[in-house]
Amino acid sequence: MSDEVFSRIDASSHKYLEDLKEFLRIPSISALSDYKAEVARCAQWLKEHMITIGLQKAEVIPTSGHPIVYGEWMGSDSGRTILVYGHYDVQPPDPLDLWQTPPFEPSVREGRIYARGAVDDKGQVMMHLKAVQSLLEEYGKLPVNLKFIIEGEEEIGSPSLDEFLVQNKDRLSSEAVVISDTGWIAPGVPSITYALRGLSYIQVDVYGPKSDLHSGSYGGAVMNPAEAIACIIASLKDDKGRIKVDGFYDKVVELTSQEREEFSKLPFDEESFRQALGVDQLYGEEGYSTLERLWARPTLDVNGIWGGFTGEGSKTVIPAEAHAKISCRLVPDQDPEEISDLLETYIRKITPPGVRVEIQRMHGGKPAIVPIDHPINQAAARALEKAFGKKAVFIRAGGTIPVVASLKEILGLPSILMGMGLPDENAHAPNEWFLLDNFYGGIKSVAALWLDLGAA
Amino acid sequence: MSDEVFSRIDASSHKYLEDLKEFLRIPSISALSDYKAEVARCAQWLKEHMITIGLQKAEVIPTSGHPIVYGEWMGSDSGRTILVYGHYDVQPPDPLDLWQTPPFEPSVREGRIYARGAVDDKGQVMMHLKAVQSLLEEYGKLPVNLKFIIEGEEEIGSPSLDEFLVQNKDRLSSEAVVISDTGWIAPGVPSITYALRGLSYIQVDVYGPKSDLHSGSYGGAVMNPAEAIACIIASLKDDKGRIKVDGFYDKVVELTSQEREEFSKLPFDEESFRQALGVDQLYGEEGYSTLERLWARPTLDVNGIWGGFTGEGSKTVIPAEAHAKISCRLVPDQDPEEISDLLETYIRKITPPGVRVEIQRMHGGKPAIVPIDHPINQAAARALEKAFGKKAVFIRAGGTIPVVASLKEILGLPSILMGMGLPDENAHAPNEWFLLDNFYGGIKSVAALWLDLGAA
Repeated sequence: MSDEVFSRIDASSHKYLEDLKEFLRIPSISALSDYKAEVARCAQWLKEHMITIGLQKAEVIPTSGHPIVYGEWMGSDSGRTILVYGHYDVQPPDPLDLWQTPPFEPSVREGRIYARGAVDDKGQVMMHLKAVQSLLEEYGKLPVNLKFIIEGEEEIGSPSLDEFLVQNKDRLSSEAVVISDTGWIAPGVPSITYALRGLSYIQVDVYGPKSDLHSGSYGGAVMNPAEAIACIIASLKDDKGRIKVDGFYDKVVELTSQEREEFSKLPFDEESFRQALGVDQLYGEEGYSTLERLWARPTLDVNGIWGGFTGEGSKTVIPAEAHAKISCRLVPDQDPEEISDLLETYIRKITPPGVRVEIQRMHGGKPAIVPIDHPINQAAARALEKAFGKKAVFIRAGGTIPVVASLKEILGLPSILMGMGLPDENAHAPNEWFLLDNFYGGIKSVAALWLDLGAA
Repeated sequence: MSDEVFSRIDASSHKYLEDLKEFLRIPSISALSDYKAEVARCAQWLKEHMITIGLQKAEVIPTSGHPIVYGEWMGSDSGRTILVYGHYDVQPPDPLDLWQTPPFEPSVREGRIYARGAVDDKGQVMMHLKAVQSLLEEYGKLPVNLKFIIEGEEEIGSPSLDEFLVQNKDRLSSEAVVISDTGWIAPGVPSITYALRGLSYIQVDVYGPKSDLHSGSYGGAVMNPAEAIACIIASLKDDKGRIKVDGFYDKVVELTSQEREEFSKLPFDEESFRQALGVDQLYGEEGYSTLERLWARPTLDVNGIWGGFTGEGSKTVIPAEAHAKISCRLVPDQDPEEISDLLETYIRKITPPGVRVEIQRMHGGKPAIVPIDHPINQAAARALEKAFGKKAVFIRAGGTIPVVASLKEILGLPSILMGMGLPDENAHAPNEWFLLDNFYGGIKSVAALWLDLGAA
């Protein structure tokens, strides 16, 4: 049965790609308040597109932040209902000068589409819409009922989503969620992600003298805030890459020896991984492999640091303040709020004398895990094999989809993570791309999954 | 004899202030290449002003960088010749949003003139020109011959000056240099500076992965350049504020017990100093008083640090690179080149694995010292007492005037440092100001000094 739809998808590929480009041209950057109107425009576009492809209902639902786009098609014979989650907002594109083509002018080169949001997550949202479109065009109906929540605040931690889920619990009733916002372990190896890391994100602000000082007239007499923040950061890890924050590892579920063995069999080549990143050597917590560090160990990274004179030339100044954005990736059973508390306590403890520290809580997300043998995880594996002609593997991911934890807690639903990204795809970095073969194969996978679930 | 000139200066104060404002309105920022034309315009303005006030010759002399303005008046009866050095370039004004009034629109408030360059060094250059003007208006001639070198690259380390001094050695022959680019120990305490610190300035560039990475997909597997630079900076000093760079203190001339005793008698109040800076506590190298740390101990400061996402909101990125501007204040007999070598060697030694470090040498300057009992230092003390009615003290300064070392080495001349700045004047910071009483008193001091030297 899927053959007919697959042919239709092949025949429509050019048209589907043009629709994706239109979606990508809207700079829906949720983190920057200047782009609020663009985010709203994107939501409106998405709603209209849902109607165009044949959903029965579509709606832009305001929140206290950026709107949520809701859509549904509820006329299936099987009576099964699946919720699809995705996001139409994107990361800021800077540094702009490192993009080969502008981030919001999609460009196809060597079988990839380059644009901010290409793979994270507009391209993958579009896969779902095009699967629906092709099924409706082919059969006039869908094999399962579908409800879509496509939000506009994923990249800033989904601050409005939980309230929406609480208020719309009945309307969203379904048996599971399918999300395409993850990636494959390697090109050509379709992958389903069964666990995600969580996130705890803070900003550390260090304040010293009340204004910038001449380093000649004052150098030697005051604690320099840029040095203070460097000392704070340097004190967060030991020389084995282990995080020194008191209590940080207390709730970490250690990997089983079976998991470690299965990870080691996956097609992951540390040397190619290293080369692709362009570093002389990989580096991480002692005692763990790279995959273990990425998937099952918590981490701490400085995402940004700034203070003092950062322009051309040399300015002999002692900065009045310095700042850092710091985030931790968390694993089961770490709690983001608790980790932020531990971080704050520890940073206050190690702040050098002569400066004042302030800590802002940014967003967080809980880590998540869904069993490999969940029936829809298994159906997804069959759908991927049908679409790509290759056996799917089960992996973890280092990234965070905080909504997965919310969907579990508020709606009681497991999330099936069937994403089509690839390593080195530059999500959150300049020159983000999405492999077109995975875009088209992703459309087929989604269609095959609905057919599989409808037939069961 | 000075009474007549002092009266004339008092009567001309409004006119002199207007001339200073005109000088301050030209944004002669030597560090920023975008301002090259403004620097040139400032040189031209200065040359014309020298002729206006009655110098016999004035000339804009091109260099491979920004021009030097040379002027002279050579008709004195005494036959003595003094060289005056100053600079017409200024520091970049950022951060702009912290200025109460725009940096290049001079504003007089509560007896101070606020503008970038007000005290460093345009206001003090103008004191010298107005002293000449008032003497010429009063007597039709000067008591001593004067040669002026006012350069446009002091704030970027005077890269063209040495060559100019070498090539113009004969033309610049004189018995000493007088420079007004220093400050008083306290308001109401006229001060002559007999020693300056030197400077060694570098930029440290740390490179990691070839592009910014998603901290979820890659966090835990690579050394983060922002963390690496923090670790480098944190390793530069121990917890007693002592610099750990190998060999850093080897050539430092320790303070004598007599100097330490004299410093302790100066009107310097650590508590007011602390309050003026707005810090909870002062901080510096253990075992030394604040004045000792500022004047006679070498220091290391981070002048700027940057890397990764520094905008509004939260971006979960591992930056591809991170940077810091780092400078050391040096004391006799440290050598800037040697200290930069030591710094570079040490930083390469402590750079963490998984990143690459590059070090750029910015500018440097040698420390300097001139004996208190030098006859012109003594004449300057008399002139200050005459102009301000208060006994002058001899102090050191924490800042750097690299030209002082060059004038000594190339021309063989001692530099008399008779500056009129004040603590907390915000040189190199937003809201730079110059006390008008010191501007007018400074004009009188300079006039009195020339009268003193001409009469000797």
